Amino acid sequence: MTAVGTVYLVGSGPGDPDLMTVKAARLLETADVVLHDKLPGPEILERIPEEKREDVGKRAGGEWTPQEYTNKRLVELAREGKTVVRLKGGDPFVFGRGGEEMEHLAAEGIPFEVVPGITSAIGGPGTAGIPVTHRDHASSVSFVTGHEDPTKEESAVNWEALAATGGTLVVLMGVGKLPDYTAALRDAGMDPETPVALVERATWPEMRVATGTLETIVGVRDEAEIEPPAVTVVGEVAATRERVVEFLRNRTGELDSPDAAATPEGEGGDE
Amino acid sequence: MTAVGTVYLVGSGPGDPDLMTVKAARLLETADVVLHDKLPGPEILERIPEEKREDVGKRAGGEWTPQEYTNKRLVELAREGKTVVRLKGGDPFVFGRGGEEMEHLAAEGIPFEVVPGITSAIGGPGTAGIPVTHRDHASSVSFVTGHEDPTKEESAVNWEALAATGGTLVVLMGVGKLPDYTAALRDAGMDPETPVALVERATWPEMRVATGTLETIVGVRDEAEIEPPAVTVVGEVAATRERVVEFLRNRTGELDSPDAAATPEGEGGDE
Ligand SMILES: C[S@@+](CC[C@H](N)C(=O)[O-])C[C@H]1O[C@@H](n2cnc3c(N)ncnc32)[C@H](O)[C@@H]1O
Ligand SMILES: C[S@@+](CC[C@H](N)C(=O)[O-])C[C@H]1O[C@@H](n2cnc3c(N)ncnc32)[C@H](O)[C@@H]1O
Repeated sequence: MTAVGTVYLVGSGPGDPDLMTVKAARLLETADVVLHDKLPGPEILERIPEEKREDVGKRAGGEWTPQEYTNKRLVELAREGKTVVRLKGGDPFVFGRGGEEMEHLAAEGIPFEVVPGITSAIGGPGTAGIPVTHRDHASSVSFVTGHEDPTKEESAVNWEALAATGGTLVVLMGVGKLPDYTAALRDAGMDPETPVALVERATWPEMRVATGTLETIVGVRDEAEIEPPAVTVVGEVAATRERVVEFLRNRTGELDSPDAAATPEGEGGDE
Repeated sequence: MTAVGTVYLVGSGPGDPDLMTVKAARLLETADVVLHDKLPGPEILERIPEEKREDVGKRAGGEWTPQEYTNKRLVELAREGKTVVRLKGGDPFVFGRGGEEMEHLAAEGIPFEVVPGITSAIGGPGTAGIPVTHRDHASSVSFVTGHEDPTKEESAVNWEALAATGGTLVVLMGVGKLPDYTAALRDAGMDPETPVALVERATWPEMRVATGTLETIVGVRDEAEIEPPAVTVVGEVAATRERVVEFLRNRTGELDSPDAAATPEGEGGDE
């Protein structure tokens, strides 16, 4: 009988291979098989040897793979005695469905380990010069999905409560519904002048940042043709970038202004 | 004239050296000097060559160093042409005062780069088997300080709004004031049966986890003698751990039950 293998639920970080953890980088070398979708980004995916890669992000027919397939495949591979990496963009437990996969593994008696990654919700703004908390103007930060599961019972995110926290809000999967939740936040009494930043493809070579206010950001998004994956930062901290960007060095230096001509290719992550 | 050096604002992650980013690990090798406090934890600090280390966490006299000293020192070293790493526990921009340091550097014309780290607020719960978001019961997660700056004008965190979000709450610097904010959350209408977990010294060799409810957790803390640094997770997700822990492997395997006998040494991070 083959001994059952271990499944590693691994976060890849936002996309820059240098922002993987030491452990994630090592596991990509040592694992027998790596199950992934597109969100880790091109630079990280191309480092995984072809023969180990298994793309569970799309079906052969081009449809999204149901979560059930991934769950089943993880168990199957572990039972074959394989060391399996389930690689997820950012952190596996930030809107990554890692929780479901972990519970499935435990229910099936498969040993697993969690390897956290840098979430795009912090590392994205951070590398753009935007601190998600700030002693002077943010005692809390909330991460929220802009793309609620419509099949879920109480499907509405409480934008009113989020506005009332007074802290920074970071919206994931929130490019398409930007008009809806910026309106909801204004309706909830948030100042229309509140700074907002969109950070697209954070830490990828073609990273872009666009800034505006709760009132102007939809127009900014349209003009710059911002596409997923991107995070939306709402709050005073979003204005920090303009105060510091002149001295901000990063590996690409390609932080474009909102009206830059670059056209993203429209890779949608899980959106 | 010496060319001015670059300052790297680097997150060390929660403490396990394997959870540093590839970039952070490399910068610790190549930097001329590393300014740090105690929060990165013993395993990471002992990897930094003695001659590069500069502890700005405590003054010679045992007092806390004012932020002004750190700010001044960063600028001074960069002007001497040094490559400087400012190493911070977790992520530099999650209650780390990295925002202030960044703004000071920019104001002084010092080039800098931000290297995000795994925040203890996500990686701590995660390695303990607690996903901060979950498709079934958490569409948002909020990080909040349990230790508000009393000198700040509007000093009160809005616990009522945080409770109303319906999402997961992760409280940092919240061991001492646990009785206050758990009471505030109950007063705000949160169910006293809401699961709560305390994750102490996450990913350090002596990591511990203690679990209870909004009603019982203060007693649990006292009995287990939980001390800082620890994060408090409030929400349905905190109950995930008990469903999965049997199959959760981690590098230490020392996840103790709440009534374990281990006595923490009481290193207080920034608390
Ligand atoms: C299904 S969620 C997964 C989030 C991921 N687990 C994390 O922690 O970053 C997908 C969303 O994450 C955000 N995202 C992921 N990678 C990103 C990147 N490199 N730049 C900007 N946003 C990103 C986008 O909001 C995207 O729609
Ligand atoms: C000043 S805050 C800095 C947070 C840090 N920047 C981060 O992202 O993790 C200090 C607080 O972080 C939390 N913390 C930091 N490291 C931790 C660890 N290894 N385990 C549990 N909590 C930790 C504790 O709540 C501690 O009081």
